[in-house]
Amino acid sequence: MTDLAIIAAVSIFTAGLTIAIGAIGPALGEGRAASTALSAIAQQPDAASTLSRTLFVSLAMIESTAIYCFVVAMILIFANPFWEAALEAATVGAGG
Amino acid sequence: MTDLAIIAAVSIFTAGLTIAIGAIGPALGEGRAASTALSAIAQQPDAASTLSRTLFVSLAMIESTAIYCFVVAMILIFANPFWEAALEAATVGAGG
Amino acid sequence: MTDLAIIAAVSIFTAGLTIAIGAIGPALGEGRAASTALSAIAQQPDAASTLSRTLFVSLAMIESTAIYCFVVAMILIFANPFWEAALEAATVGAGG
Amino acid sequence: MTDLAIIAAVSIFTAGLTIAIGAIGPALGEGRAASTALSAIAQQPDAASTLSRTLFVSLAMIESTAIYCFVVAMILIFANPFWEAALEAATVGAGG
Amino acid sequence: MTDLAIIAAVSIFTAGLTIAIGAIGPALGEGRAASTALSAIAQQPDAASTLSRTLFVSLAMIESTAIYCFVVAMILIFANPFWEAALEAATVGAGG
Amino acid sequence: MTDLAIIAAVSIFTAGLTIAIGAIGPALGEGRAASTALSAIAQQPDAASTLSRTLFVSLAMIESTAIYCFVVAMILIFANPFWEAALEAATVGAGG
Amino acid sequence: MTDLAIIAAVSIFTAGLTIAIGAIGPALGEGRAASTALSAIAQQPDAASTLSRTLFVSLAMIESTAIYCFVVAMILIFANPFWEAALEAATVGAGG
Amino acid sequence: MTDLAIIAAVSIFTAGLTIAIGAIGPALGEGRAASTALSAIAQQPDAASTLSRTLFVSLAMIESTAIYCFVVAMILIFANPFWEAALEAATVGAGG
Amino acid sequence: MTDLAIIAAVSIFTAGLTIAIGAIGPALGEGRAASTALSAIAQQPDAASTLSRTLFVSLAMIESTAIYCFVVAMILIFANPFWEAALEAATVGAGG
Amino acid sequence: MTDLAIIAAVSIFTAGLTIAIGAIGPALGEGRAASTALSAIAQQPDAASTLSRTLFVSLAMIESTAIYCFVVAMILIFANPFWEAALEAATVGAGG
Amino acid sequence: MTDLAIIAAVSIFTAGLTIAIGAIGPALGEGRAASTALSAIAQQPDAASTLSRTLFVSLAMIESTAIYCFVVAMILIFANPFWEAALEAATVGAGG
Amino acid sequence: MTDLAIIAAVSIFTAGLTIAIGAIGPALGEGRAASTALSAIAQQPDAASTLSRTLFVSLAMIESTAIYCFVVAMILIFANPFWEAALEAATVGAGG
Amino acid sequence: MTDLAIIAAVSIFTAGLTIAIGAIGPALGEGRAASTALSAIAQQPDAASTLSRTLFVSLAMIESTAIYCFVVAMILIFANPFWEAALEAATVGAGG
Amino acid sequence: MTDLAIIAAVSIFTAGLTIAIGAIGPALGEGRAASTALSAIAQQPDAASTLSRTLFVSLAMIESTAIYCFVVAMILIFANPFWEAALEAATVGAGG
Repeated sequence: MTDLAIIAAVSIFTAGLTIAIGAIGPALGEGRAASTALSAIAQQPDAASTLSRTLFVSLAMIESTAIYCFVVAMILIFANPFWEAALEAATVGAGG
Repeated sequence: MTDLAIIAAVSIFTAGLTIAIGAIGPALGEGRAASTALSAIAQQPDAASTLSRTLFVSLAMIESTAIYCFVVAMILIFANPFWEAALEAATVGAGG
Repeated sequence: MTDLAIIAAVSIFTAGLTIAIGAIGPALGEGRAASTALSAIAQQPDAASTLSRTLFVSLAMIESTAIYCFVVAMILIFANPFWEAALEAATVGAGG
Repeated sequence: MTDLAIIAAVSIFTAGLTIAIGAIGPALGEGRAASTALSAIAQQPDAASTLSRTLFVSLAMIESTAIYCFVVAMILIFANPFWEAALEAATVGAGG
Repeated sequence: MTDLAIIAAVSIFTAGLTIAIGAIGPALGEGRAASTALSAIAQQPDAASTLSRTLFVSLAMIESTAIYCFVVAMILIFANPFWEAALEAATVGAGG
Repeated sequence: MTDLAIIAAVSIFTAGLTIAIGAIGPALGEGRAASTALSAIAQQPDAASTLSRTLFVSLAMIESTAIYCFVVAMILIFANPFWEAALEAATVGAGG
Repeated sequence: MTDLAIIAAVSIFTAGLTIAIGAIGPALGEGRAASTALSAIAQQPDAASTLSRTLFVSLAMIESTAIYCFVVAMILIFANPFWEAALEAATVGAGG
Repeated sequence: MTDLAIIAAVSIFTAGLTIAIGAIGPALGEGRAASTALSAIAQQPDAASTLSRTLFVSLAMIESTAIYCFVVAMILIFANPFWEAALEAATVGAGG
Repeated sequence: MTDLAIIAAVSIFTAGLTIAIGAIGPALGEGRAASTALSAIAQQPDAASTLSRTLFVSLAMIESTAIYCFVVAMILIFANPFWEAALEAATVGAGG
Repeated sequence: MTDLAIIAAVSIFTAGLTIAIGAIGPALGEGRAASTALSAIAQQPDAASTLSRTLFVSLAMIESTAIYCFVVAMILIFANPFWEAALEAATVGAGG
Repeated sequence: MTDLAIIAAVSIFTAGLTIAIGAIGPALGEGRAASTALSAIAQQPDAASTLSRTLFVSLAMIESTAIYCFVVAMILIFANPFWEAALEAATVGAGG
Repeated sequence: MTDLAIIAAVSIFTAGLTIAIGAIGPALGEGRAASTALSAIAQQPDAASTLSRTLFVSLAMIESTAIYCFVVAMILIFANPFWEAALEAATVGAGG
Repeated sequence: MTDLAIIAAVSIFTAGLTIAIGAIGPALGEGRAASTALSAIAQQPDAASTLSRTLFVSLAMIESTAIYCFVVAMILIFANPFWEAALEAATVGAGG
Repeated sequence: MTDLAIIAAVSIFTAGLTIAIGAIGPALGEGRAASTALSAIAQQPDAASTLSRTLFVSLAMIESTAIYCFVVAMILIFANPFWEAALEAATVGAGG
């Protein structure tokens, strides 16, 4: 079962690392965008609706990179093709 | 039981690392957003309600990346599919 | 008992690392938010109550990421499911 | 099956790392572009439509580098030619 | 006694590292908050009491993350559940 | 088949790393160029067409370095001469 | 005596590292607080007493994190429970 | 065939690393040059042609360092003298 | 004598590292405090005595963290309890 | 042939690394020089010819360090004296 | 003599590292203090004597951390108690 | 011939690394000097000749550190005394 | 002679590293002090003599940390007490 | 001859590293000093001679740290006392 264990360990470690590292950039980028939006609204309250709309589109765009990471982490945990192939091979090996 | 131990050790280490690294970005990003909100309110007190609303939406957006990390850490500790498969295999191996 | 020792060592190391790394971001983020709040109050003393309220909400939001880390560290030390499974297995192995 | 396990482990680890590291740059770059767009709109509300258009073209351009990474990660997980060759070789070896 | 030694060594190393790394963030964050408070008082001496109160609440909030680290370090040295389990097991092993 | 596995593993790892690291610089550089373009348009709306043209030429120039990386990653995955030589050698070795 | 040596070596190394790393943050934080205090006094000499008082409270607060590290280092050198347990075990082992 | 595998693995890894690291500097440098060109055109629209010319010469100069890296990466993949010597030696060894 | 050598080597290395790393923070912090004091005196020569007094108190406070490190380094070299215990044990072992 | 393989692997790796690392500094330095030249021309269009001449001399000077790296990389790949000596020795060893 | 060699090697390495790392902080800190003193004298030539005196006290204070490192390095080279104990032990071992 | 291979490998690696790392500092330093010269000429076109002369002397001075590195790299590749001694020893060993 | 080789290798490596790392801080610190002196002289030409004197004292003070490193490097190469003890021991061992 | 090879390899590596790392600081420091000198001359052309003189003295002072590194590198390559002792020992060993 060593192969299974290696694949499981690597999947677990990578899933955690992916979302952890992948959360740094978007969080900082969104913080920057949000902070400029706030000072822009304070400077030009009349344009608040345009600014909010632009902010939300930008946040969604930036969030998308975090979501790519989350998707990959979820795939690695719950729909990992390598793990399934290894499980199958282990079953065949045991049943053969 | 070595395989189980490897998976357990990797899960523990990854869960901790995930939330630890994943907390850096959001904390800094929220700190930035909050600090700009404060100086924006000081500069334009009349727009405080608009600014608060925008701040809270932004904080929620940024917090979401921390929550992704927390969710992955919790999954790794309490609902880890690799650990369950390994436990099951160990039981079968011992009972077979 | 080697498996138990590995799990124990990894749990101890991860618990400490989690809270240690997890304290950097929130501390810096709160320092930033607090420092802007102070200069905002100095600039606009009349808005002190609005600023304080916004500051406390923000600090709570930022503190939450430190608390996620503290929770994970506590779980790893005092309610670690992997450790309990390993202890149980060791007892069974010894009693069997 | 050791070769299969090595390739699987490396593929998993690389896929996660690729999207994780690859998300940092675009997120920061988009955050910067978005934040300047917001302050530019606040400064020149009349040019909002030109600014929005330029912003969206730029975001798409920057996002493209994140998408390159996502594509490579997906290829490594679901359409990995090395994995398929190794699987085939393993089947031939077992069937021969 | 090798297991005991591993757990002891990891506990010692982690306890030191936890408080050492955990002291960086709060110290810098408090330095920042304090320095802004000082320049804020110099700028608006009339608001000194409000500023002091806000500063102390903020320092306490930031200090809390250092205290989380200190608590974890103390637990690891003086109330480490893994060490106690290992000691007990060693005693049983020796007495059995 | 060990040699094949080494080459496959290195190719996978390098392909991912290449595009991941190679995406950081262009994303940041494009973010910078785009953000200056936005503030330049806000400052001089009359020169918007000249600015857009210069921006697009610059973005293309910067994007080119990301594309070099993408090309190398694709070559390593789908047209890797070392892999083909190794495959051929393995076939000859098996058929000889 | 190998176990004793490991614990001793780890204790020595950790004690030094703890106070060394733990001194960086407070020193920088205090330097920042002190430098702002000095420029604040130069700007508003009339508030010197308020500023001094606030500075000393802040320095004490920041110094506390260095003292946590010093305390842990001292405990690890002179009152290390793991070392005492190991010494005792060694004595029992030698006397038994 | 081990020697061939080592040379192939090192060539693959180096080719990817070379273009990946080599893309960071030029991308950032071009981003900086382009962003200054944009703000310079906004500030002095009359000098746009001189500025564009200077910008394009500078971009070409900076791009040249990325192209050095791309050339080296291509040489390592498709015209690697060490690989050819090793292949030849392997053929001689097999045919002798 | 291997145990003695390990403890000696670790003590030497840690003592040097402790004071070396521990000197960075205080030196930078004192440089900052001193440089602000100098510009503060230049700006407000009448407050030179207050400024000097505040500077010296601050320098002493910052220097204290360097002194903690120096004390730990000296303890590790000249009054190391682990070394003494190991020496004693070695003497007993040789004399027994 | 192991010696040959080591020398070949090291040469390949070093050649790539040399030009990759060596491209970072010049690219950034040229980007800085070019960006200042652009803003200088925008500020003083009458001095454009003097500025261009100074810029080109400076770019050539900075480019020279990239060229040193490129030359060393080319020497390591195509005119490596160590490789030639090793090849010759291998031939003599085989022919002797 | 292996123990002696280990202690000698560690002492040499640590002595060099201590003074090398320990020279960074003070050099930067003194550079900062000196540079502010110079601009302060240029701004307020009448206070040159007060500024010089404060500068020299500060430089001495900062230099002290470099001197701590130099003292530790010298102790490790010329008055190393661990080396002397090891030499003595070696002599006894050889003479016994 | 192993010794020869070690010396050759280390010489190759060091030569590349020396010029690669050694090119970073001068390139950045020259970029800084050149960029200030350009803005200085734009600000004071009458002093262009004095500025050019000072710039060229400074560039030569800075370039000298890159040339030291290039010289050392060339010595290591083409006039390496250790390599010659090792070659000679190998010849003597073979001929003796 | 292995012990001699270890000590020699560590001495060589440490000597180079000491002066290399030890040259970074002073060079940057002196560059900063010198650059401020130059702008101070430009701002207040009448105080040039006071400024020069202060600059030279400061440069000497900063240079002293580089000289500490140079002295330690020279001691390690030409007056290394550990090397002499090892040489002596080797002679005695050979002659005995 | 293994000892000779180790000493030779370490000497080569250290010599290259010493001058490579040692070139970074002086190059940056000189770049800073030169750039300030240029802007100072542009600001105060009448003081050009005083500024040039101060610049050259400062450059010489900063260059001295690069020269320390170059001297140590040259000593390690061409006048290495450890290498000579090892050569002599090897000759004696071979001739004895």
